Amino acid sequence: MAERLVVIGGDAAGMSGATNARRGRPDLEIVVLEKGPDTSYSACGIPYVVGGSVDSLDDLVVRTPQQLRDQFRLDVRTRHEVVGIDLDARRLEVRALDQQRTLHLGFDLLHIATGARPVRPDLPGIDGPDIYGVQSLEDARALLAGVDGRRIRDVVVVGAGYIGIEMGEAFVERGARVTMVDGAPQPMRTLDLDMGAHVAEAIRRFGIDLRCGSSVEGFSPGKVHTADGDLAADLVILGIGVAPASALALDAGVAAGARGAIGVDHRQRTSKAGVYAAGDCADVVHLVSRRRIHVALGTVANKTGRVAGTNLGGGYETFPGVLGTAVTRVCAVEIARTGLNEAECREAGIEFHVGTVEGTTRAGYLDDAETLHAKVLIERRTHRLLGGQIVGADRAGKRIDTLATAITAGMDASQLIDLDLAYAPPVSPIWDAFQLAARDALRVARAEPR
Amino acid sequence: MAERLVVIGGDAAGMSGATNARRGRPDLEIVVLEKGPDTSYSACGIPYVVGGSVDSLDDLVVRTPQQLRDQFRLDVRTRHEVVGIDLDARRLEVRALDQQRTLHLGFDLLHIATGARPVRPDLPGIDGPDIYGVQSLEDARALLAGVDGRRIRDVVVVGAGYIGIEMGEAFVERGARVTMVDGAPQPMRTLDLDMGAHVAEAIRRFGIDLRCGSSVEGFSPGKVHTADGDLAADLVILGIGVAPASALALDAGVAAGARGAIGVDHRQRTSKAGVYAAGDCADVVHLVSRRRIHVALGTVANKTGRVAGTNLGGGYETFPGVLGTAVTRVCAVEIARTGLNEAECREAGIEFHVGTVEGTTRAGYLDDAETLHAKVLIERRTHRLLGGQIVGADRAGKRIDTLATAITAGMDASQLIDLDLAYAPPVSPIWDAFQLAARDALRVARAEPR
Repeated sequence: MAERLVVIGGDAAGMSGATNARRGRPDLEIVVLEKGPDTSYSACGIPYVVGGSVDSLDDLVVRTPQQLRDQFRLDVRTRHEVVGIDLDARRLEVRALDQQRTLHLGFDLLHIATGARPVRPDLPGIDGPDIYGVQSLEDARALLAGVDGRRIRDVVVVGAGYIGIEMGEAFVERGARVTMVDGAPQPMRTLDLDMGAHVAEAIRRFGIDLRCGSSVEGFSPGKVHTADGDLAADLVILGIGVAPASALALDAGVAAGARGAIGVDHRQRTSKAGVYAAGDCADVVHLVSRRRIHVALGTVANKTGRVAGTNLGGGYETFPGVLGTAVTRVCAVEIARTGLNEAECREAGIEFHVGTVEGTTRAGYLDDAETLHAKVLIERRTHRLLGGQIVGADRAGKRIDTLATAITAGMDASQLIDLDLAYAPPVSPIWDAFQLAARDALRVARAEPR
Repeated sequence: MAERLVVIGGDAAGMSGATNARRGRPDLEIVVLEKGPDTSYSACGIPYVVGGSVDSLDDLVVRTPQQLRDQFRLDVRTRHEVVGIDLDARRLEVRALDQQRTLHLGFDLLHIATGARPVRPDLPGIDGPDIYGVQSLEDARALLAGVDGRRIRDVVVVGAGYIGIEMGEAFVERGARVTMVDGAPQPMRTLDLDMGAHVAEAIRRFGIDLRCGSSVEGFSPGKVHTADGDLAADLVILGIGVAPASALALDAGVAAGARGAIGVDHRQRTSKAGVYAAGDCADVVHLVSRRRIHVALGTVANKTGRVAGTNLGGGYETFPGVLGTAVTRVCAVEIARTGLNEAECREAGIEFHVGTVEGTTRAGYLDDAETLHAKVLIERRTHRLLGGQIVGADRAGKRIDTLATAITAGMDASQLIDLDLAYAPPVSPIWDAFQLAARDALRVARAEPR
């Protein structure tokens, strides 16, 4: 009988695992169990459907279950939720949701790609009507059904992170009045406060009523109760972040890693033989701090899923780690970050100097040159690059990749400054913003008494 | 008496040399001799003035002679052309062009930043009216004066490199009919032919009559004579490339480096004690081939000038080398390259595999996602990154910086694929185009018999 690989979860990490395992082992029986109706979709695209720049949620599907069956001979079973893992018996307990029955399925190899769940704080009224998370296509369908045909005037977004801001923008574009509430002093907690302030400015300029340092205390129909009074809300969007959906694996005895995620090694192997995990449910190593952390990002899910799949398919592949590189384009600005921010450096015990610059996206003499703010953190004494952030107009965001590459290579500030980067007036000023920020950081570092 | 540094040339390499020398040595007497009327300007911006998106050539001036005098205590003398260097007597022969007299000036330290000269092929009629190069602000002033008040219908651009295409676009924007002639089979010789073909398509789509593989045989008033017949030309633009303006230094006994440029070491020192050179007149080392080459790029002029200046000012700074990274945005596409192309690999004896991809600038489901073509060259067996090129719509160009950084770090294809780069649907697909091209190159490499 053929060996059987069961994959739990049919999105990025699950499907890149399954398809890469198939490449290595044509002989393997591969079953993919997905509790929702969809496979391989871009959850990151949901705000653009809500905002109207993408027509349909179907456009976000990269590969349908049927395509995956046909192209990769995967036994894809949607609406099948795994409710228990018996590692000794090497058997799963599976709930077939449409048939409303429970079945059991044996496995030789297991790939856990259960993703992350949106955080839903335990507040009064949180389970009331018109309160939506936006983690899956199902969430998005529910949201779109909930707004369909209604006139939505007031939207409250709880949480001013990536998804919160993207959804806030989407509802402004639909003509709603949007209020955004976040407990932190500035939006976008993965940035430092000084860079968050530039984001706050962009959010407000876009017409969103941003209320930082304010906490939500509960919900009632048509209202959000905050520490600073009630807000009218025809609709509430929760954008508070996500937590790894690791309970199933941990309950089965798989060892936990960082922040409640499933612990994996550099080949995506868990503590249990033949059991792999990848994507938002697993932890990863941070390339600068060398600590294991948890991030929930589509890029990382794709990459770690691919590594797991190659190893499951009998190949050899390792995942070197992440920098937490992320970008968004929202409220007419681009926002990006990579590596460690100030708080993360402090937590890791790494001392640093900061360099900042206010630059332009193009040569300053061009009419369409726009402002950008860049920041670089370098290690004290070694001047090694630790991280950086950028907030600016069109074309600012992807510049973070240059810094991410330099950090991965272990470069110091001088090496960044020496890089032969591309210049042409309509594309960039003669010195890249991160090169200028690195110069500023070196100036600060050299002013320090030895 | 104070030691005297004389700088020959008042543009990027000269002025970054002078200002950085000043920072290190407040005591130095610094004289800058510039044969033209301008200092520190962006020659790269000239096409945008001609095209009308920048109002005036004055906007391209970063620092006027007076600002340089005031801010850095530089004795800046414009319209002073150095006509001879006597290294034994440590004395320059200088022609004061406005006074029409010759004077002599002693020096202790010398920084040569004489730049490059546009190539003017020795063809019949080349010195006729209405034939313009566009290397300096003076050239641009002459050109603008030449078109002022005239109705220019037909423009012929000789040479389909960066400056040629940029000027061609500028004249299309002024309403002229533009014909572009180049002897090579595709435009943009610094790209491989397959990538040049994508550029050709963009040039033609923009409405320029591009004639590749055709040679210019001479000029007469109103006409350009080519091997394939005569072309009507109210105006001719020469964009055939530049050669290092090194004769003054070489005549004085300074040793030549690559391709007729002044030879320098990694501190920008020439063969003669106390004599430095930087910018378009000097050679540089290529980071991949490790050979000395000649490039004429503003970024390199700025960086090498800065290194020369720091060393002249008693500091210590080295210039690690270049990748020949370049970008332009023209005819509605962005075009960029870095490292070695196929021909340069062959010349250096480096065997390689090629990976290519047709990708998109944003997530494919967004309406404004546009096509881009990327190419990566990796070394045979080691899979080390050697170079790459990209041609695509808005936002394609600056992605070359990621590859340039990875090449500088000595990364191989797998390390590029592993990089944690930024993803968000409106900014990028989930895999960067160069990561996909690197995957393609690895596929090719692995198919090769060992």
